[in-house]
Amino acid sequence: MGLLDQLRDAISTGGVEIIDLTAPLSSSTPILQLPDPFANTIPFQLEEISRYDEKGPAWYWNNIHTGEHTGTHLDVPVHWVSGKDGHDVSQVPIKTLVAPAVVIDVSSAVAGNDDFLLEIDDVKRWESAHGALPDGGWLLVRSGWSARPDVLNEARNPGMSAECARWLAEETPLTGVGVETVGTDAGAAHSFDPPFPCHNYMMGAGKHGLTLLRNLETLPATGTMLVVSPLPIVGGSGSPARVFAMVER
Amino acid sequence: MGLLDQLRDAISTGGVEIIDLTAPLSSSTPILQLPDPFANTIPFQLEEISRYDEKGPAWYWNNIHTGEHTGTHLDVPVHWVSGKDGHDVSQVPIKTLVAPAVVIDVSSAVAGNDDFLLEIDDVKRWESAHGALPDGGWLLVRSGWSARPDVLNEARNPGMSAECARWLAEETPLTGVGVETVGTDAGAAHSFDPPFPCHNYMMGAGKHGLTLLRNLETLPATGTMLVVSPLPIVGGSGSPARVFAMVER
Ligand SMILES: Nc1ccccc1C(=O)C(=O)O
Ligand SMILES: Nc1ccccc1C(=O)C(=O)O
Repeated sequence: MGLLDQLRDAISTGGVEIIDLTAPLSSSTPILQLPDPFANTIPFQLEEISRYDEKGPAWYWNNIHTGEHTGTHLDVPVHWVSGKDGHDVSQVPIKTLVAPAVVIDVSSAVAGNDDFLLEIDDVKRWESAHGALPDGGWLLVRSGWSARPDVLNEARNPGMSAECARWLAEETPLTGVGVETVGTDAGAAHSFDPPFPCHNYMMGAGKHGLTLLRNLETLPATGTMLVVSPLPIVGGSGSPARVFAMVER
Repeated sequence: MGLLDQLRDAISTGGVEIIDLTAPLSSSTPILQLPDPFANTIPFQLEEISRYDEKGPAWYWNNIHTGEHTGTHLDVPVHWVSGKDGHDVSQVPIKTLVAPAVVIDVSSAVAGNDDFLLEIDDVKRWESAHGALPDGGWLLVRSGWSARPDVLNEARNPGMSAECARWLAEETPLTGVGVETVGTDAGAAHSFDPPFPCHNYMMGAGKHGLTLLRNLETLPATGTMLVVSPLPIVGGSGSPARVFAMVER
């Protein structure tokens, strides 16, 4: 039996589970709030076109108004000035969108410290326990933040140090980092040197960010196959994305 | 070696290929044009928030304005009055989004007839040659329309007869039908009985539609694993979607 037939059977018998890592999109989806004088993204909003009425007797549909960086979304190199000659969101290689992922669990450290920053040593300790970071794959940071909807929208949130961001971008084979928070950088990162180091170094290295992920606590440390599906917006700096994880049970 | 490790290796060696079936999104993405007095969807549009300037010195990003039913998109039951008690686009079961797909090639019949309608007999002939339609899977109709960008935006386009739509919805185990055109119904379907029969019967049966697909000519008749990724819009009637096909080579 071919591999895809085996996959189909494993999905239907539960040997392979598909887990949705995407936060639902609505006007209450938390969004990043940049301090003055920077311009901010619009929140997600639907505008009804018709609903079984004179504007469309048999059909209901809406227009959508949202930011590229609203909800569960992908950041791509052109999002940052350091990556401005890199690819846009319609040009992300498929091998980045369907790729292995590993999960580092820092939720107990974050529980005691809203300003927790991931450090190189945390990742090196993870590697000692679980092996090398996946070549061309994703590091997903389980902070526990998705269980705290009260704070998702706040200016304060965990992230990573500038040193760790530079190291992940320049010295590991990863294609990207995924987080539970509204952005890949810490809430305080506008005051870091450089500002927003995760964006600065990752985009500068032609890499990616993935935000507002859910259900990371259901994933194993290694062995996940991630399917990241941004809209292929021509010239776009990012996109709301559906994110599925395939895991073996 | 586990199944997902085998999949990862097959993807990197080319034994399994991931094909992007999604049309790029831009202001020139073709959209459905309904006749008066019905309200129409807005086209896709980006609105710049900042681009390495005073509004955001290190970053470029946009707001997005689009329809739920613009570009490559998914139709779900609540889109139509016949399915109004069914699920919205945030509630589509994962087993519908990651599911087998088969391809019926009607491109030579369409080449001579812009108003071609798929009939029950066409699908029954396909079944005689290739086997049963996939339980919970997708029927993708290769019309060749994606190679004709000149006409994608026109009111005329191929589709299916009302009889065929009713039969696919009520007498087959499919979860949905995918097409290359801007909608699953024929351009002339507003005058059919019932109007827009594919929408009417498929949504009424709790099923789905998928539009503006590309690259169907690269897929085998059977054996594709489809990954359909609409945005999980709470209360939404559909969504622009990224669509990947996994095929064995
Ligand atoms: N940190 C930022 C600063 C400016 C613009 C966007 C961001 C994001 O986090 C984002 O990409 O969502
Ligand atoms: N045929 C239609 C009639 C009314 C509204 C939408 C449609 C679509 O095709 C659609 O779902 O894109």
